Amino acid sequence: MFGISPSARLRPSPFFEATRAEGVTAFTTYNHMLMPTSYGHPEAEYWRLLNGVSQWDVAVERQVQLLGPDAGRLAQILCARDLSKCKVGQGKYVPLCNHAGSLINDPILLKLAEDRYWLSIADSNIWFWAGAIAAERGLDVEVSEPDASPMAVQGPKAEEVVAALFGDWVRGLKYFWFRETAIEGIPVAVARSGWSKQGGFEIYLLDGSQGTKLWNLVKEAGRPWDIGPGNPNFCERVESGLLSYGGDTDAQTNPFEVRMGAYVDLAVPDDVVGIKALRRIHAEGPKRHQLGVILEGETPTELGFLWHEIRQGNRKVGDMTNCVWSYRLKKNIGFALVGTDCQPGDAVEVVKDGQVLQGTLTALPFI
Amino acid sequence: MFGISPSARLRPSPFFEATRAEGVTAFTTYNHMLMPTSYGHPEAEYWRLLNGVSQWDVAVERQVQLLGPDAGRLAQILCARDLSKCKVGQGKYVPLCNHAGSLINDPILLKLAEDRYWLSIADSNIWFWAGAIAAERGLDVEVSEPDASPMAVQGPKAEEVVAALFGDWVRGLKYFWFRETAIEGIPVAVARSGWSKQGGFEIYLLDGSQGTKLWNLVKEAGRPWDIGPGNPNFCERVESGLLSYGGDTDAQTNPFEVRMGAYVDLAVPDDVVGIKALRRIHAEGPKRHQLGVILEGETPTELGFLWHEIRQGNRKVGDMTNCVWSYRLKKNIGFALVGTDCQPGDAVEVVKDGQVLQGTLTALPFI
Repeated sequence: MFGISPSARLRPSPFFEATRAEGVTAFTTYNHMLMPTSYGHPEAEYWRLLNGVSQWDVAVERQVQLLGPDAGRLAQILCARDLSKCKVGQGKYVPLCNHAGSLINDPILLKLAEDRYWLSIADSNIWFWAGAIAAERGLDVEVSEPDASPMAVQGPKAEEVVAALFGDWVRGLKYFWFRETAIEGIPVAVARSGWSKQGGFEIYLLDGSQGTKLWNLVKEAGRPWDIGPGNPNFCERVESGLLSYGGDTDAQTNPFEVRMGAYVDLAVPDDVVGIKALRRIHAEGPKRHQLGVILEGETPTELGFLWHEIRQGNRKVGDMTNCVWSYRLKKNIGFALVGTDCQPGDAVEVVKDGQVLQGTLTALPFI
Repeated sequence: MFGISPSARLRPSPFFEATRAEGVTAFTTYNHMLMPTSYGHPEAEYWRLLNGVSQWDVAVERQVQLLGPDAGRLAQILCARDLSKCKVGQGKYVPLCNHAGSLINDPILLKLAEDRYWLSIADSNIWFWAGAIAAERGLDVEVSEPDASPMAVQGPKAEEVVAALFGDWVRGLKYFWFRETAIEGIPVAVARSGWSKQGGFEIYLLDGSQGTKLWNLVKEAGRPWDIGPGNPNFCERVESGLLSYGGDTDAQTNPFEVRMGAYVDLAVPDDVVGIKALRRIHAEGPKRHQLGVILEGETPTELGFLWHEIRQGNRKVGDMTNCVWSYRLKKNIGFALVGTDCQPGDAVEVVKDGQVLQGTLTALPFI
């Protein structure tokens, strides 16, 4: 592993000092911020998420705030999913596409008020893009970055912890719904969401000066359930089939290629960015789709920076966009972005680190 | 220093293997790629740049290509600087501003042909923004990322090295001008440019599969002048007063605040993004400006992730946006983004890592 040099281009999170106190050992960068990726015990951190409860600094999931009389109109213009029935307090997973129908982010949209929406984004700059479209269309809406920094509490025991801290009302929150509240004077929003399939919540810290205090409140509340630090878990997210925008996508990827077709409403108005291109792509049928790959061999792989070419015979048919050792399957697994003629069950070769590995395509999720 | 976890969201450069062979020890991330920041000998790398010639992997300076009949029109719409006299083969340093007149990047614009321009960008996503404006205005132009990866050769002996490799014609290149050529079958563009004040060139590799070969050609050519690896040098760029977009700027920074007023042409047409806001800001006078700070004390500081508050008396007057030990001044120095009532010569206090340090404001550059 290489070191990462400090720079003011890379902001620390409000939970930075708390995660240092927890013994963070590695970071990634995401939305020009640092996100913890390891506390030095990867397998234990994985099983904690699967069997217990894990506390994550995911402040890098930044918010793009749309505020003003035209906020709702802009939200719909930016999202290829119908928002007409979205209620205050509700969140929705939405594809953001450019005018050519290519995916440029896959945020959770949160409707805080009729004139205030947040896009809780993956790792790409949506402020410039959304601001440009709002201004070009002459809309009365401000696009900005609010003081809002999510912390995730994930795992089968997460609900116990969050209920112990905030009250039993959290048990009634539906998936992606949220409520604004406060804890010991710290303003927060509590949402049932998070980038795992193990269940849990995201607590949006709404006062960046109180990160350590909030971290420690959650940590204290979680002590009876043996809470510990973790982070979006590479192995669990791959096993669970969760997409990583920018990792599993390229500049030409459209939502239909990466299992997001269910979140595209082709009947949204014509002024939605990219919708005409998406209708055409849908009518023609996507050229690629996303499957899983299970590689032969029993030696855990190292994480890498690159995609790996997938071949059938001597022909490139696509790319393996991630590769990780599955603690449950005891195999190296990953996602395949391949031509639609490739199907689950097909044998493939994967070119990885100069070696040709044998693998089999499979449906997603793995588990 | 913390480790950086591998992820396909962070692409390696075409020179990645070459820099590993050179002994790279640390990286930063920039435009979702890895950029070397150290080869383990920071002071030696600094003096090599000052006195000799240094070879840098700056492939992270990505290109936003504007291609098509309306490329020139789009270039002018995006840039608050008059491009009407820009010739093929010429480059210009340009501020990119959003509709509110805030700086969103400070690229070198390269005019490759009447219908082909590149914006060689700093660390923010301009593809989405430029593509949105082109599409909203119905322009006939494609916005894309070409296969173009700069390597810099910097320092007083850089011209000798680049002339030895490409021929004496490079000595005639004017600042920011460039020429497309090839070396041993590798297509490149050679520009007189680079993010230092020590002089030199950037060689844009135009075939990403040949990074190691190009690296080694330059290394061989530089052997008589004792070339060695380096990177955009934090100390040299601060001493020289070079701006780091995103490091020294915030979401509200306008070009006049950070010594870029000379690159804004207020008379460009009204359809240039942000020009109306820039005229208003200029007429009102900017609220902040950029100066230097020299701190008291003789102990070299560590680089950090944060800005440091600058005070006069008990009042915050701005921020110190970087802080580095100057090998030439033998002081810790950095940039101040402060109210326009603050002037060179003023005594200030800087709050850094919980300590209050005494400092003096100064004009930029330091040297």
